[in-house]
Amino acid sequence: MKYSELFGKATKSELKEDLSANAKYLIKGGFVDQLMSGSYTLLPLGFRVVKKIEQIIREEMNKTGAQELLMPLLHPKDVWNETGRWDSAKEVMYQFKKDDKEFALSFTHEEIVLDLIRKHAFAYKDFPIKIYHFSTKFRNELRAKSGLLRGREFLMKDLYSLHISEKDLDKYYWEIADSYIKIFKKLGLDAKITEAAGGVFTDEHTHEFQVLCDSGEDIVFYCEKCDFCQNKEIATVQDNDNCPKCPSTSSGQVGKIKSGNSIEVGNIFKFGTFYSKKMNVYFMDEKGEKQLPYFASYGIGLTRLMGILAEMFHDGKGIIWPKVVAPFRVHLISIGKNADELYEKLKKDEVEVLYDDRDVSPGEKFADADLIGIPVRLVVSEKTLRQSSGQAGEQIEYKERISEEKILLNYEQILNKIKKN
Amino acid sequence: MKYSELFGKATKSELKEDLSANAKYLIKGGFVDQLMSGSYTLLPLGFRVVKKIEQIIREEMNKTGAQELLMPLLHPKDVWNETGRWDSAKEVMYQFKKDDKEFALSFTHEEIVLDLIRKHAFAYKDFPIKIYHFSTKFRNELRAKSGLLRGREFLMKDLYSLHISEKDLDKYYWEIADSYIKIFKKLGLDAKITEAAGGVFTDEHTHEFQVLCDSGEDIVFYCEKCDFCQNKEIATVQDNDNCPKCPSTSSGQVGKIKSGNSIEVGNIFKFGTFYSKKMNVYFMDEKGEKQLPYFASYGIGLTRLMGILAEMFHDGKGIIWPKVVAPFRVHLISIGKNADELYEKLKKDEVEVLYDDRDVSPGEKFADADLIGIPVRLVVSEKTLRQSSGQAGEQIEYKERISEEKILLNYEQILNKIKKN
Repeated sequence: MKYSELFGKATKSELKEDLSANAKYLIKGGFVDQLMSGSYTLLPLGFRVVKKIEQIIREEMNKTGAQELLMPLLHPKDVWNETGRWDSAKEVMYQFKKDDKEFALSFTHEEIVLDLIRKHAFAYKDFPIKIYHFSTKFRNELRAKSGLLRGREFLMKDLYSLHISEKDLDKYYWEIADSYIKIFKKLGLDAKITEAAGGVFTDEHTHEFQVLCDSGEDIVFYCEKCDFCQNKEIATVQDNDNCPKCPSTSSGQVGKIKSGNSIEVGNIFKFGTFYSKKMNVYFMDEKGEKQLPYFASYGIGLTRLMGILAEMFHDGKGIIWPKVVAPFRVHLISIGKNADELYEKLKKDEVEVLYDDRDVSPGEKFADADLIGIPVRLVVSEKTLRQSSGQAGEQIEYKERISEEKILLNYEQILNKIKKN
Repeated sequence: MKYSELFGKATKSELKEDLSANAKYLIKGGFVDQLMSGSYTLLPLGFRVVKKIEQIIREEMNKTGAQELLMPLLHPKDVWNETGRWDSAKEVMYQFKKDDKEFALSFTHEEIVLDLIRKHAFAYKDFPIKIYHFSTKFRNELRAKSGLLRGREFLMKDLYSLHISEKDLDKYYWEIADSYIKIFKKLGLDAKITEAAGGVFTDEHTHEFQVLCDSGEDIVFYCEKCDFCQNKEIATVQDNDNCPKCPSTSSGQVGKIKSGNSIEVGNIFKFGTFYSKKMNVYFMDEKGEKQLPYFASYGIGLTRLMGILAEMFHDGKGIIWPKVVAPFRVHLISIGKNADELYEKLKKDEVEVLYDDRDVSPGEKFADADLIGIPVRLVVSEKTLRQSSGQAGEQIEYKERISEEKILLNYEQILNKIKKN
């Protein structure tokens, strides 16, 4: 993609002072545009990042045997009335009336899933059911100040599973927990499985995936040695306590509890038969007896995750994208001389490349490259050409976003470096 | 995918008599589930079809230089007020108030696009702008009886383009018209570019893409010889008139006008500077003078298109999917003997295969295969095995959905047939 043609470029306009880091860099870099408080357009650059996050999640979900579908966003009141959440989730849900019919917008999909299940699954052989979608959620967030971290409208992957026994549900629940940890690790995030409260979802404790981050809204208490971690809202420990879990682990040593700010990157909820019962979802077991299926749901916010990555991975100059989700693999800059030939070569070799072909100063091009945060920057200029004399092939300046080192390499060397990493 | 594990199977339950053909076959085949009037869940089979339609459209859009992004679905009132459509489109728009703020759901995105443009494009060099997204539309449809053809909530590809001159807009407008014709042709649809009224979008005439179909809601008057076609709502001709366009074409012969029922598969709107002016969208031209950009929008309903394909391509037994959008390429049926080995082989050779491994009667499997409408059916049974003796490799029964002919082929022959077509 030629940067001159890209819709949504880096901007120099000053933004409001109190913007969170993720909003600041995502807006300045041309990744998102704010339509209103808590609502953003994904510009072409941001759209590419979100699609890559989506694909990483999709692959992991499919590995667990989950099936992708798509449920509606506009819901009839009667389905939400069956569980009582039409009233109990009133604050967070957008509800309205049109021509005497009452509707709600999707703030989650448990009720819609169960309505679907009771029309399509009847016998034990029809279970387990593992279905997910990537879709839009709407929440009336009062704290919609954290950029992409908390919005009125956002993209989410939500998975729902139903099982004929609690044991089978437990097994899948922890399989998804593992799968989530893998997803976050691929994105460069070290997430802690954290005990937490269920909010409008359940009175039981649930599990959140928390990443330590100074600007995070949550506080967690975690063990410095084992994987014990609790959200402050339900914590049974405090700073410098001995870890209550360590004694049961094999190492023998007991770690100290520490606390820190953190960001929630995902959550999983075990509902048991609570919702199935409220919504009259039954199946026939092997003996021909009516039973309630066990139900769980599992969420990851997609646009939120893009926000978290920007929040976690930036310096004073801009974002530093993990390679797997960077909008492009290479940011090619021409100074003086054009780099059209190199651009075409990279595209032919299937390297995703953003080519800054604009007629602006080198300083502006470098600053925008740092802001956008693509992992590798290549520069072609009169200087790199001069230094090419006597070398094997034309020399190109190679620099990684995470490093200050600039080196001259020829095309083959660059291609090797990019394909290797 | 093993059919035993698929969520959303073919159903034998009787449906309401007055369902349109597309709804009947899509529901019975397990492609969609109705949440409420005009609102459907895309079950895994239907989701696969829609994703294939989406990819065909995406490729054609990208070829025209259009860039994909994603705009929000929940809109603030003030943006819609700028053009007056908050009031003029009140009937079709879902509007509501929450905590003293008024919102609307996306019934289209012109206003949202223009709000975006005026924040990101300032000079002639920033044009043309060609941006599109696949996203959800909400319309308060009173005629929500036509299954997937007309819904309260549906998926749409909408493209918006802005240009510095009417000439440049015209050029791109007809490029997209060509692109649409190509898309529909790929899907097996012979669409006519049809002059029509603009509805809540514009007072000018626009162009619809209409496909002749007995159950279509529209009526078009078209020339039997040239590409002249008008929607009845604005038609200046009637049955058996001489075509007013033929005299200006090269053939010399003048065709007769015919009329027929038809379905709209897409539409394109030229707005000129009407909306730009209302929303104060300007750019600086080469002389440094403020000018209004020319604006157009271009829509294709994705879920509607799945409905149209089911409406156009079915027989008494079920749907007959065009190969390019079929949820799977091959429907493999085992009778008696299991076909696990063949299933694994096909997957390894990257053939998308739905494998009916259930313990049900051959008759039920055949009926479900016809209902689901995958292009090729393969049967492995004791009978096909018996007939294999003396042949080169195991024989498999091959049948296409569009034909009654069954032939015995070995694996290589089948693979060749599938890859060739």
